[in-house]
Amino acid sequence: MGNRLGNNRGQRKVNHLKRLAILGSTGSIGQSTLSIVEQFPERYQVAALSAGRNLDEACAQAIRWLPKVVSMATEELASELTTRLGQAGVNGIEVVYGTEGTVVCSTLPDVDFVVSAIVGVAGLEATHAAILAGKPVGLANKECMVAAGEILTQAARERNVPILPIDSEHNAVHQCLRVGAHSEVKTIWLTASGGPFRQLPLDQFAAITPEQALKHPTWVMGRRITIDSATMLNKGLEVIEACRLFDVSPSQVRVTVHPQSTVHSLVEFVDGSILAQISITDMRLPILYALAWPERPASTLTFDLAALRHLDFEEPDFARFPCLRLAFEAAQKGGAHCIALNAADEVAVEAFLARKIPFTGIPRTIEMVLASTPEAHPATIAEVLATDREARQTAHALLA
Amino acid sequence: MGNRLGNNRGQRKVNHLKRLAILGSTGSIGQSTLSIVEQFPERYQVAALSAGRNLDEACAQAIRWLPKVVSMATEELASELTTRLGQAGVNGIEVVYGTEGTVVCSTLPDVDFVVSAIVGVAGLEATHAAILAGKPVGLANKECMVAAGEILTQAARERNVPILPIDSEHNAVHQCLRVGAHSEVKTIWLTASGGPFRQLPLDQFAAITPEQALKHPTWVMGRRITIDSATMLNKGLEVIEACRLFDVSPSQVRVTVHPQSTVHSLVEFVDGSILAQISITDMRLPILYALAWPERPASTLTFDLAALRHLDFEEPDFARFPCLRLAFEAAQKGGAHCIALNAADEVAVEAFLARKIPFTGIPRTIEMVLASTPEAHPATIAEVLATDREARQTAHALLA
Repeated sequence: MGNRLGNNRGQRKVNHLKRLAILGSTGSIGQSTLSIVEQFPERYQVAALSAGRNLDEACAQAIRWLPKVVSMATEELASELTTRLGQAGVNGIEVVYGTEGTVVCSTLPDVDFVVSAIVGVAGLEATHAAILAGKPVGLANKECMVAAGEILTQAARERNVPILPIDSEHNAVHQCLRVGAHSEVKTIWLTASGGPFRQLPLDQFAAITPEQALKHPTWVMGRRITIDSATMLNKGLEVIEACRLFDVSPSQVRVTVHPQSTVHSLVEFVDGSILAQISITDMRLPILYALAWPERPASTLTFDLAALRHLDFEEPDFARFPCLRLAFEAAQKGGAHCIALNAADEVAVEAFLARKIPFTGIPRTIEMVLASTPEAHPATIAEVLATDREARQTAHALLA
Repeated sequence: MGNRLGNNRGQRKVNHLKRLAILGSTGSIGQSTLSIVEQFPERYQVAALSAGRNLDEACAQAIRWLPKVVSMATEELASELTTRLGQAGVNGIEVVYGTEGTVVCSTLPDVDFVVSAIVGVAGLEATHAAILAGKPVGLANKECMVAAGEILTQAARERNVPILPIDSEHNAVHQCLRVGAHSEVKTIWLTASGGPFRQLPLDQFAAITPEQALKHPTWVMGRRITIDSATMLNKGLEVIEACRLFDVSPSQVRVTVHPQSTVHSLVEFVDGSILAQISITDMRLPILYALAWPERPASTLTFDLAALRHLDFEEPDFARFPCLRLAFEAAQKGGAHCIALNAADEVAVEAFLARKIPFTGIPRTIEMVLASTPEAHPATIAEVLATDREARQTAHALLA
């Protein structure tokens, strides 16, 4: 590592300073995390970036943040990054690659906190490794919890490692849970925008086009998650995630449709009190919360409560959104069924976006894959990944 | 004390058991508190009742709950109660009276928790004495905090005595505050139903009758507090109460009109997160919260979140509700101005109910009394009570 960097660090080291590994640094959550680091240089420092395939952005981030390690998806990309950094006169950054490279980032001794924001099960091994290494994790990757939540949470409990949820709903729940004990929780209520088809007549669902489904009313997100919002499968994954993150049964999790996406979720306690969290729809807020927990730094991410007019809530329509029902059923069975739900959906969404199946084919595909999935509880990450592959193969075979 | 009672207590004593003094036991909050004791006999026991003037109810409560002490408003009532208890064959209950009697109740060595629910400044001395004696207090009497909050909270801080608010708004705030540190609080938002005249044209306010003003849309309460809700002076008193209870400045407290009275209040933190508390409009819930804090026992006081449809919020109209403005001004000045605000309002409301002044005469009277009140900070309860008497005299003189 270069001297310049070392000196910088020595000077900036204060009590609060957390050195971050950001897994998925070139994605939306990764970039938002870096904008938080930019706003709070006295609190956060970048120690490692796992950047995937976006070489230009990875190079720019490495030059800007001078981490100890950067990981790329492949050996070629890593090699190209090394060349570019050399040309830019930036030395002393170790460049690694692949799943192993991501694990190097998430377990680096210098790292105090890992932001897990790689989309899909690709981030699973590095997240697991981070927990095993005793690193607190800010989790933006819901597939990790859906596919391997039982393994991850058990490892975290054994090592007393906090997992701070970064998606807005679970982050809200995490906040609300602070007002009572775990044994006092009655129901976790996840809010859902209801997506663009909340009021569409049921007989028009089969004709929904990818273009229609990609328009989300309140959040701008990636393509798969936007489709998952339209089917409400996304909310179903969040139900499973909530069960694992907060150690509650699926019967303790409910969904309420709240089109304004202003209340991010609620927790109902056994005494009858319900706590709700309200804020702007900006991912930087849950990221900041996760990074700073248990503190709350002052930010400009304010919500104008005086401008609040109406909040609407309604029960979700399980006939319109069969994916939500399938997710509750998978949550009840746990293990392989949750993995298969996620894997089958990813394949089905790709097929829908490629216009190979209709919108209503997504839940149909998932239901068929689940029907052929045995009840099992993978005990290792390798078993989880094997189950994931099998479910994808089944889904592809069904769609072929 | 009778043997029978002693034996009962010995058998029932468990870890959780709190022995209560209920000041104002025959009022609405007092009766609700006793209904909580009835539901949780393993948690609560009645050690002392301060019952005021309702002899029949006081006698029934004494026979039902067998406290160590009962206090009545006067010597005659105390004497009559002693006679009646003797006739009923109930012995061993000490009967006391007056302010001194209430202080006996609130400072009884056997008492673990004091519910302060005497309306008006009458409960002030006993509440102060309870804090000085190191008893945790559940505070349902907002005049105590408005008139002597500076004295009470200082005494509580010095002795590390918790004051648990029992009115629904401050109770909600107390809950929301648990998700962050005091230094992280930006704004406390008190919700207000807006009362029956929220949408009445301004030029019709002068013609409002007591009958119209006594119809509150969501809560059934006493006469003065119902009128105070109609003028929003009640919300103003709550602003002052919030400043004292939670050690914040008036600029950190805001009011939002929320006609459904479902969100009981909100706390905005410096990071941008807002926490809200939602529950049914039933005073037993904040009472239970205060009694059980920091625990939350399971109760049947549930709110049907699935039935939640719309929540509306709007900014309060200071032109319609000048009492709210006057309260914020008094909060800013503190001390004698807060005492005078409360005292002048009580006199003005009586005059309004007696049809001596119009509805709009209430804020007019308060404003005049405040204008003639010097800025001062009474340092003792005696000084507070003297300031209170002076303000009442000024108000009476103005109205004569």
